[in-house]
Amino acid sequence: MRRQITGFSNPTVKYLRSLREKKHRKVAGQFIAEGLRLLTDARESGHLPEILVMAQGREAHPLLDSLEAEVVAAGGEVIETSADILSKITGKDNPQAVAGVFAEFDTGLHAIDRSTAKIWLVAQALRDPGNLGTMLRTGDAVGAGGLILIDDCADPFSAEAVRASMGAVFTQQIGQARWDEFLPWLRGGAGQLVAASLRDAVDYRRAPYAAPCFLLIGNESRGLPEAYETECDLCVTMPMKGRADSLNAAVAGAVLAYEALAHLDD
Amino acid sequence: MRRQITGFSNPTVKYLRSLREKKHRKVAGQFIAEGLRLLTDARESGHLPEILVMAQGREAHPLLDSLEAEVVAAGGEVIETSADILSKITGKDNPQAVAGVFAEFDTGLHAIDRSTAKIWLVAQALRDPGNLGTMLRTGDAVGAGGLILIDDCADPFSAEAVRASMGAVFTQQIGQARWDEFLPWLRGGAGQLVAASLRDAVDYRRAPYAAPCFLLIGNESRGLPEAYETECDLCVTMPMKGRADSLNAAVAGAVLAYEALAHLDD
Repeated sequence: MRRQITGFSNPTVKYLRSLREKKHRKVAGQFIAEGLRLLTDARESGHLPEILVMAQGREAHPLLDSLEAEVVAAGGEVIETSADILSKITGKDNPQAVAGVFAEFDTGLHAIDRSTAKIWLVAQALRDPGNLGTMLRTGDAVGAGGLILIDDCADPFSAEAVRASMGAVFTQQIGQARWDEFLPWLRGGAGQLVAASLRDAVDYRRAPYAAPCFLLIGNESRGLPEAYETECDLCVTMPMKGRADSLNAAVAGAVLAYEALAHLDD
Repeated sequence: MRRQITGFSNPTVKYLRSLREKKHRKVAGQFIAEGLRLLTDARESGHLPEILVMAQGREAHPLLDSLEAEVVAAGGEVIETSADILSKITGKDNPQAVAGVFAEFDTGLHAIDRSTAKIWLVAQALRDPGNLGTMLRTGDAVGAGGLILIDDCADPFSAEAVRASMGAVFTQQIGQARWDEFLPWLRGGAGQLVAASLRDAVDYRRAPYAAPCFLLIGNESRGLPEAYETECDLCVTMPMKGRADSLNAAVAGAVLAYEALAHLDD
């Protein structure tokens, strides 16, 4: 059954709006993803929203009908509201006609099975949620297993990260850990740790990548701490022909990931 | 001589704020870049600001002193104002302590000398200013000559594009043209046009890149029009191992540009 909500001051609307802030997401353990395409990707990856929010006046769509039926069958809630209120909830001027509220995933390292993929992306102190989402999207493209976030990173469940991931937030495994938790975990099994370095390092085209290969990208302004690079099995670097001394973090991750893919996929 | 401005309603403050909007930038032919690092990059690339705006209470810096002297010597204007007003001008909560107002560059194709570089980036209908700035930054890194913007793209002189370019807006040549203007220009000289395609195409690792190589990236949601791809000398594609059917546009451009660099730089 659909519940109609018409007032901006409705407590459910207030709750949903609160999910735009990280602290409220952490308390609630829920996050929002917008748009039928994202919700369809989510479902096909085994994730159903706990709450489905639809705007009145939306165009009918068979995928949306079946999604609604599945949410109801799973005991979830379906809310119909005005486009204005949905816009208030998502914080976008031109919101999608539908949004879903999902339970946040378990991001403990224990949930990661490294044997499932040849490539894993690892980002340290990545602060930009758009970069984070883009790395998830790249991870999906290269067949990576997921993205492990080290130290204080942007929140992978923020609206901007979810949006930039283009659905990959649902297909890529996400890990979160401090470095001194990550390193023992990594060394507790097979795995090559490769740093994208701004220092003197091996040419990234000629490096001996080995699976499972963990590609480590540092913070947007500072790069990786030198002490972290020291712990890596391999430090690689990309040519920098111009004035700048670094690439955008998501770009560096992608160039490196595609290079590793070419080596490991043969 | 420094001019002091203390009031939010000062006409110069209003003018500088207006440069955040594209229509005002186009009328004025000026844009804003923030931060000492960017201004230093600009100067070293031969670009002095016409107006230098500095916040009171900033830390003294020898680079800023010499920049100020050069601006004055060149007949430019130096304005000192409060951090609050500077924040109002740049639209950032934590603005840099200094900003410069620059004359927009000539972006006509006639200003481009294709013989100066092996790689040129070309973007079609690129709508995200962050992607645009990131492509400029990548262009700098691979030693590209510049970025040519086809059809309706984001404004390369917007604050977000300038910021994401990390100074490359001053080092990369920027062109702007409609497709039916670009194609005759391209064919009027040497140049291989390579499309990053979402369709069946040559594996990007095995493509016969040739300099000067123009790497064409399509719109964020739609990719390139098929009619444009037909005009290209080569259509290349990158592996997509996951659920998604495309990469972020700036990421696709970077992966392709680094691949072309490896082929052409030998």
